[in-house]
Amino acid sequence: MRSLRWVLVLLCLMPVVANAATPAQSGIETFNQALDAATRSMDNAATLALWEDDGVSLLPSTPPIVGKKAIGKFLDDVMASIPGGRMEMFEMQCHDIEVSGDWASEWCTEHQIVQFPGGKPPFEGWGKMLFVLHRGAEGVWRIREEMWNQAVAPP
Amino acid sequence: MRSLRWVLVLLCLMPVVANAATPAQSGIETFNQALDAATRSMDNAATLALWEDDGVSLLPSTPPIVGKKAIGKFLDDVMASIPGGRMEMFEMQCHDIEVSGDWASEWCTEHQIVQFPGGKPPFEGWGKMLFVLHRGAEGVWRIREEMWNQAVAPP
Repeated sequence: MRSLRWVLVLLCLMPVVANAATPAQSGIETFNQALDAATRSMDNAATLALWEDDGVSLLPSTPPIVGKKAIGKFLDDVMASIPGGRMEMFEMQCHDIEVSGDWASEWCTEHQIVQFPGGKPPFEGWGKMLFVLHRGAEGVWRIREEMWNQAVAPP
Repeated sequence: MRSLRWVLVLLCLMPVVANAATPAQSGIETFNQALDAATRSMDNAATLALWEDDGVSLLPSTPPIVGKKAIGKFLDDVMASIPGGRMEMFEMQCHDIEVSGDWASEWCTEHQIVQFPGGKPPFEGWGKMLFVLHRGAEGVWRIREEMWNQAVAPP
């Protein structure tokens, strides 16, 4: 009887365990780690690989950047505008991951410090991001839409 | 035999018709019309009714506003800061509506002109929005996350 009771307890707990870390949410965490790594290393090819072909990037005071080709050009232009720039620190925390079929969403906060050569002062910035992600046929999550805006620096 | 052939043709067409204007996408259009009407009339109660209890509003240079109560206070504070303000014009165009189960997303552009009493100059602004929407148990779509940033004024 004691072993039967434990089996019942385990069966009752199973849905809770399944909710705690679904395979789909694990997929989003894998995406987040890849985005974190690509941003830290300022690796534009790795960043672009995280975008869907018809992705849309929504940045402040900038027209919507539509499609992987335009997003790649934007990333290259940014890197060309900060020669020798190096990401010294990048931190990202994501919240409210929701997965429904092949679509997902989450919002994140980020903090970054970029160093420049030649004694230029470093850039320190704080931002917020909202992501709509889509899982492709091969099971990989990529960005369909990303929006960014300024966050408040901590006191 | 001829009637059977027509039944088969109709059965084949049905999924195509369903894809062209799904009830779920119609639900998002209903949400958009309600958001448009609430914004035009600056009706905070109507705007707040479009939010989920645990919604998150992500505005520039502002900490995340989490929960319907905090969002209501923010809306009231905005209205109190512009006494007599009146929305003269509001236009919103939305794109890339995606629905998956009870979750949906879309991004929009908006253009607004607000008039003030006492000869103050009007405010004219352009913005972009990204929405994550959730369909509640009663079948109504509401905002789970909204982010806004500045758009570029047309030339």
